[in-house]
Amino acid sequence: MEKIEKIAETYRQLQTEICSTLENADGKGKFSCNPWKKEIGGGTTAVLQNGAIIEKGAVNFSFVKGKFSSRMEKLLDEKAENYAATGISSILHPENPWMPIIHMNVRYFALDNGISWFGGGIDLTPHIIEPEDASSFHRALKETCDRFDSHFYPGFKQWADDYYFLPHRNETRGVGGIFFDRLKFSNSEEFEKLFGFTVSLSQLYPAIYTEFMKKYANHPYSQREKRWQALRRGRYVEFNLIHDRGTKFGLESGGNTESILASLPANAAWEYNCTPEPDGFEEKTLKLLKKGVDWIQFKPNTK
Amino acid sequence: MEKIEKIAETYRQLQTEICSTLENADGKGKFSCNPWKKEIGGGTTAVLQNGAIIEKGAVNFSFVKGKFSSRMEKLLDEKAENYAATGISSILHPENPWMPIIHMNVRYFALDNGISWFGGGIDLTPHIIEPEDASSFHRALKETCDRFDSHFYPGFKQWADDYYFLPHRNETRGVGGIFFDRLKFSNSEEFEKLFGFTVSLSQLYPAIYTEFMKKYANHPYSQREKRWQALRRGRYVEFNLIHDRGTKFGLESGGNTESILASLPANAAWEYNCTPEPDGFEEKTLKLLKKGVDWIQFKPNTK
Repeated sequence: MEKIEKIAETYRQLQTEICSTLENADGKGKFSCNPWKKEIGGGTTAVLQNGAIIEKGAVNFSFVKGKFSSRMEKLLDEKAENYAATGISSILHPENPWMPIIHMNVRYFALDNGISWFGGGIDLTPHIIEPEDASSFHRALKETCDRFDSHFYPGFKQWADDYYFLPHRNETRGVGGIFFDRLKFSNSEEFEKLFGFTVSLSQLYPAIYTEFMKKYANHPYSQREKRWQALRRGRYVEFNLIHDRGTKFGLESGGNTESILASLPANAAWEYNCTPEPDGFEEKTLKLLKKGVDWIQFKPNTK
Repeated sequence: MEKIEKIAETYRQLQTEICSTLENADGKGKFSCNPWKKEIGGGTTAVLQNGAIIEKGAVNFSFVKGKFSSRMEKLLDEKAENYAATGISSILHPENPWMPIIHMNVRYFALDNGISWFGGGIDLTPHIIEPEDASSFHRALKETCDRFDSHFYPGFKQWADDYYFLPHRNETRGVGGIFFDRLKFSNSEEFEKLFGFTVSLSQLYPAIYTEFMKKYANHPYSQREKRWQALRRGRYVEFNLIHDRGTKFGLESGGNTESILASLPANAAWEYNCTPEPDGFEEKTLKLLKKGVDWIQFKPNTK
């Protein structure tokens, strides 16, 4: 398990880089860094609240070790005595409803039975879908994936469609992105490739969001868009509390609740049987929350 | 399983009575009744939004039948081919932050292996705890329980403390109430007693809330209380989406999503590491969100 010390050190540095890039782009908000220690390990939760552009953003780093409980054995279908895990997890909720929510996670998980793997993903959740943003987002992901393995993007894109999905709403969370889990390795070359991939994603993440921050910082909006944003944030809360594996694993393994739930938006709304008017941005967005959209080739069929 | 038809008919009528009592007390809001039918059965979701006192309230009736899946077998630790279930489930979110959220559920669950049972509960979630309200609430529950069985209140009160609890926050959801599940019967006398108990609770529920509506309709409040209400609603959302068995069972069994999630408040808020000032109503409330408080005998030890 000594590999994990090196990985944790790199992830810790990447957390600092991500925060500093985002602070620069925001211009006003500052991340407050909150180190925490519990029985299972520790981490640092960096949280930015009420920035100029980012309303609530969290960049968490954690490095934990513990007993591999029977509950985890069931969850992960592996047998072991102890586990160790390290990762970065981040979500950014913008003030401007035209700007998307973004999420990134990279993680390394090691069992004392010799099995270990990388997992992670980046996905984009626009409150209002602008197809050209989804396209440029997916192109950026594909470009980074392709530098490591040409099979990564197509496989991980589909995995994201399946994972970032709310079955009870029959909606994807947003326009997807990439998701991967249990990427195992059998030699040091494979290890370096996967580790390097997670490092590149951690660098790509703030770069992608900085572009959105430039584009939408001063985009005008009305109460209608803010109301819609609160309702879409409600869906985000549903996904995170009902489905998100990291949230589930974190809360069940005795992780730091405030860090785990720092992913929740500053506010959210629910309205019974909310049905948007035909042809508004709300209905157009709902129609695009589907699995299997080829965003890179996307041509809107409405004018 | 023919018993269930009679129970469902009674529950359906009780739903109408609950709605009409609450509408009268609100004076402005009206319940919109939305019947729904899916493969597994149907029901009526009655929702009141933007009343004078109730900001968002739902009274659901449902009667469903279906295959008893392997997932349900695991969840309930029973073996059967088919199940049928009927129940009323209600949550009321008031506009005024001084007024508590209330929840009630009664249900009858029958398996085709001959096993069936009643379950349910009523619990109160004040945004700001007023101990005398918690006392009168628990006294009313005890009185109704005692008319059926003197063991009901003490057992079901403790069950509620354990059930309406957020382990990740180490907080009870509110001041508890009663909770019971899998109350089985072996003859018609026992059946009538349990059925009668659920009917009495369904009648007690709007009566209790009407008293709160009278007391708090015009209670003055400021932005500070509204802000706190939104944060406490966030906790309510966490409980319902992470822990609530009815929500879980409903969503997993293919129930009506809009009906199930009508329990969520109109809005909710989250703030990282929110720590209230000492001695305010916020901190006093947090200190009382504990299991095992004897609300009936409660004497506040602060002046």
